Amino acid sequence: MIKKPFLHTVLSPALLDLYNINDSIVVIIDVFRATSTIATALYNGATKVIPVDNVQDCIALGKAKGCITAGERDGKVVEGLQYGNSPSEYHRDFIEGKTLVITTTNGTRLLHMALNMGAAEVITGSFVNLSSVCEHLISQNKNVILGCSGWKNRFNLEDSLFAGAVVKCVESCFTIHCDSSLMAKQLYELHREDMYSFIRKTTHWHRLAAYGAEKDLEYCVTKDAANVLPVYNGEALVTQNLTITS
Amino acid sequence: MIKKPFLHTVLSPALLDLYNINDSIVVIIDVFRATSTIATALYNGATKVIPVDNVQDCIALGKAKGCITAGERDGKVVEGLQYGNSPSEYHRDFIEGKTLVITTTNGTRLLHMALNMGAAEVITGSFVNLSSVCEHLISQNKNVILGCSGWKNRFNLEDSLFAGAVVKCVESCFTIHCDSSLMAKQLYELHREDMYSFIRKTTHWHRLAAYGAEKDLEYCVTKDAANVLPVYNGEALVTQNLTITS
Repeated sequence: MIKKPFLHTVLSPALLDLYNINDSIVVIIDVFRATSTIATALYNGATKVIPVDNVQDCIALGKAKGCITAGERDGKVVEGLQYGNSPSEYHRDFIEGKTLVITTTNGTRLLHMALNMGAAEVITGSFVNLSSVCEHLISQNKNVILGCSGWKNRFNLEDSLFAGAVVKCVESCFTIHCDSSLMAKQLYELHREDMYSFIRKTTHWHRLAAYGAEKDLEYCVTKDAANVLPVYNGEALVTQNLTITS
Repeated sequence: MIKKPFLHTVLSPALLDLYNINDSIVVIIDVFRATSTIATALYNGATKVIPVDNVQDCIALGKAKGCITAGERDGKVVEGLQYGNSPSEYHRDFIEGKTLVITTTNGTRLLHMALNMGAAEVITGSFVNLSSVCEHLISQNKNVILGCSGWKNRFNLEDSLFAGAVVKCVESCFTIHCDSSLMAKQLYELHREDMYSFIRKTTHWHRLAAYGAEKDLEYCVTKDAANVLPVYNGEALVTQNLTITS
């Protein structure tokens, strides 16, 4: 019997160091909104997306390389940057052929942690690119970590919901001895038919909806609306065409 | 309008420092099996239960004070200690009027963390004393942290399930803006009628059932089977009679 690779769900960046991620694929999950926006920009033709964890680096890269810079705090574009974190800003007419530098806190930190801890590959996932993520994981036959970015290291519902959607899709190909994965899958099964109403109960909804981002958040849980596979190449997230291995 | 106190659920000891627990009641949750055994020993008349996080301290206290010492590793009583961690060992004929020193890892560590971080009160909870815990929390009008011990800092299902049972019972008396609490409550609502079968899916079940502890684990999710309120007094957990404040 062929031994299936392991899959674990990590509910907060603060728990990542409990797992051996050497030689694993790590999926960075930040549904509201970083990994939804990253997939959308790439889907609409951005050359690459550079994630940075602070405003200064974002401004510096914008000046040095002529990139588009993006970042928000409290629902407003950060002073010194050009655009916000809403996926709706990155339509094809605007972003095609350009490089986006985006400053996010939760997701970018987790991405760098995963690299430093020896991940074999780092990709990003959200509902908008669910199928690409799942097809890739199934094709690679490697251990997988589903890494939820959470909110300032706290657990959040929307990232777990997405992890659950992945577990549900790929579970037959993995060995899963992981309470977090089972919880996430059950949460997803419970709400897969009422996602738009369920996300209104999350703390993140209340944080962002105050700034008029309701439509954004509904988009972020729309399956395969921007179905590409963003892969980190050491500098930026770029689109990878899916290659199905036999 | 009177402002209700806050309630948060913390899914792992590694996440406790994200919360301000000053002047809060912290409920230590370690369903399999520490907090179930503690409630059972006190319910059956133990004078007090001293939780320690290592075997050496357990042995030393046993010698110095003539306490009963307990602790397991891999399903066997630890060398130098007298008894195991099964609640079934602490029936009234044996434990009444005695002091139990119990060595546990996950739960004891969390208890000491909570004290060091300024908790106003530390109590322990499991399904066997669910009603006592809920009645106490409702009566005190203080902020509450439901602290899941997890397994070596990883999330576990059974502690979250109990947190969810508490949330379900007390939610009308608290302000709850907390994704962990909402998840825990939904997990509990999903499984309240099939607890015995659901716990068979947890990683902890597979860890302990290998040592023949199935009956123990079913007991640990039996509501109000040992319905006392263990309160930490700075040295040990002792039974507190409920006082309902107006």
